[in-house]
Amino acid sequence: MATGGLGLVVERASGSLVLVDRLAHSAVGRIEGLGDLSHASLTYSPDERFAYVFGRDGGLTKVDMVNRSIAGRVVQAGNSIGGAISDDGKLVAVSNYEPGGVRVFDADTLEMVQDIPAGSKTIGLADMPGRRFIWSLWDTGETWIADLSGSEMKLRKLADVGKNPFDGVMTDDGSTYLVGLFGEKGVTAIDLWSKDPKPVRFLKNYGKKEDDLPVYKMPHLQGWAFTDGQFVLPAVGAHELLWVDRITLEETGRTAVHGQPVFIISQPASPYVWTNFAMPLNDTVQVVDSRSHAVVRTLQPGPAVLHMEFAPRGAEVWISVRDANVVQIYDTLTFAKIGEIPAQSPSGIFFTARAHRNGL
Amino acid sequence: MATGGLGLVVERASGSLVLVDRLAHSAVGRIEGLGDLSHASLTYSPDERFAYVFGRDGGLTKVDMVNRSIAGRVVQAGNSIGGAISDDGKLVAVSNYEPGGVRVFDADTLEMVQDIPAGSKTIGLADMPGRRFIWSLWDTGETWIADLSGSEMKLRKLADVGKNPFDGVMTDDGSTYLVGLFGEKGVTAIDLWSKDPKPVRFLKNYGKKEDDLPVYKMPHLQGWAFTDGQFVLPAVGAHELLWVDRITLEETGRTAVHGQPVFIISQPASPYVWTNFAMPLNDTVQVVDSRSHAVVRTLQPGPAVLHMEFAPRGAEVWISVRDANVVQIYDTLTFAKIGEIPAQSPSGIFFTARAHRNGL
Repeated sequence: MATGGLGLVVERASGSLVLVDRLAHSAVGRIEGLGDLSHASLTYSPDERFAYVFGRDGGLTKVDMVNRSIAGRVVQAGNSIGGAISDDGKLVAVSNYEPGGVRVFDADTLEMVQDIPAGSKTIGLADMPGRRFIWSLWDTGETWIADLSGSEMKLRKLADVGKNPFDGVMTDDGSTYLVGLFGEKGVTAIDLWSKDPKPVRFLKNYGKKEDDLPVYKMPHLQGWAFTDGQFVLPAVGAHELLWVDRITLEETGRTAVHGQPVFIISQPASPYVWTNFAMPLNDTVQVVDSRSHAVVRTLQPGPAVLHMEFAPRGAEVWISVRDANVVQIYDTLTFAKIGEIPAQSPSGIFFTARAHRNGL
Repeated sequence: MATGGLGLVVERASGSLVLVDRLAHSAVGRIEGLGDLSHASLTYSPDERFAYVFGRDGGLTKVDMVNRSIAGRVVQAGNSIGGAISDDGKLVAVSNYEPGGVRVFDADTLEMVQDIPAGSKTIGLADMPGRRFIWSLWDTGETWIADLSGSEMKLRKLADVGKNPFDGVMTDDGSTYLVGLFGEKGVTAIDLWSKDPKPVRFLKNYGKKEDDLPVYKMPHLQGWAFTDGQFVLPAVGAHELLWVDRITLEETGRTAVHGQPVFIISQPASPYVWTNFAMPLNDTVQVVDSRSHAVVRTLQPGPAVLHMEFAPRGAEVWISVRDANVVQIYDTLTFAKIGEIPAQSPSGIFFTARAHRNGL
């Protein structure tokens, strides 16, 4: 069967995944036994055959998309927040809080091939070309780059990235690694195409205003969108999007929105970004034009909109509505709801086209 | 089986395709009976199940990637130069010289659903979001946009695009349609995200210098690359790449290269573009850095390098070497040749990941 139209929806309360057929607008199976998926993400092998699911409890599960079953599973740490797959599909890395560090596994056998303790919680793990991984360290304010392309791993450590990095993300072109800071204002950019990458601070007023704002209320950098020569990111503790010029790294505008933005995602081949919001205003989604910076549409899918995923070429958007136990499908041109798939407490939605993208 | 790692190589002299497995670095089948593929391209269905092959003789062939066979075929015109599939995968459009115009087919049955005569050769066909297609007319200097999302087709005609458009291409973000002109100097840009798209001329010195330069010696716009805030395109009748700022549309630099560039292709997640050359200097490929505009590597794969295709995340490049009857595979980090697949007079190489990209 062809795998290009498949996807997985995380059922966060039951340790299960719904396998979906994007073209048929239907569920085609359920895979169970993935442990604690209350915070989970996944990545695909380059041929779309396997999904690697990273669960909060440190579980790493290899899911076979063709046989619709678990092909391998290891509980590799006590508490884990995400992972990535190398560009050649051979290695899977996982970012752990407990014990703090990154572990690297053979994508075929799930055997551990490298253990990279950090003495710190690790965050912001992403793949880089050439069988490399990058991540940051909460406690020490460093960013590490591991090169696993040779027989021996080469580890490069960049210091002075900032106080308490809480998240990191790669730009869509793979040129820059962005690091969000919890312990000071500002965002750090590291130019990965430079021979000597150095941390550079920008948006120097961006960050929490009160000392007691907990880290889980800081916006995810995974929520940034890259569109039309700009970054767009959530304001901290304010109901706004911030627009930043990619070349100058200067703020160029703000958009007042419905609530505290969580995920801002670019609609492919369009000037639009779609945003969802944090509790309690999380029944709403807004569409914003990257050129005018204006809200062009407001939708109300239902209680607890957790995630949005576009068809790779942009014709549809799939929206998980956790407390309605449903994934809704919208036509991005007309905003009509064109389908619905039942799912128990759905959170993340991941189409197989992600197999072909960097930095996820 | 998973389809995400598959690809097709055109065997231009025998009307056949080689089915390849990108991860295994091997051929896994051959499909024959596709007529005249001396000039051919193809596009994929959104689930990667089918390839639609557009042949010079007006043949439109639907190829089943799972069953490795021809699922449908129609000879729909006398002379045809390319095609596209709508973003929702429902319609396939073909661009014809004879009779001049565009024909649209049901992607499932290959039944013709719309005949759009132009009284002119049509060129530069691409898909646009919302089940639309765009193309240009050689004889009249117009660009047409067909909207097939409703029960009746809506056709929009833009005049004064330029004298004798010979090719057109969509930028990678889908924002702009670029039209190359044969009858006058300059390139036309049309902003597709505008409510009222208008042709705008730029690079006003770009174009043929001698009146008798035949159209087939003009560089393909399909050879343009979009990288790092720039366009990079082949100079006309000179051994140079031109670099253009995407925002200002002003030329920002030139790179002296080995021959007349044909295809310039961006290496994913990198600052590099790779270029091949026209006869007689077509045994060579060069790699150029988009930041320094300098050549960083020169390779000599062999006689008649016709096409290059990257692994979607950039770790490898596949290069067709027509007169050595082989497709070579290179590691983009080390430039080492890491594989080779026999193919008869290979030309275009197309991986299934293209199913998830716009404007192809």
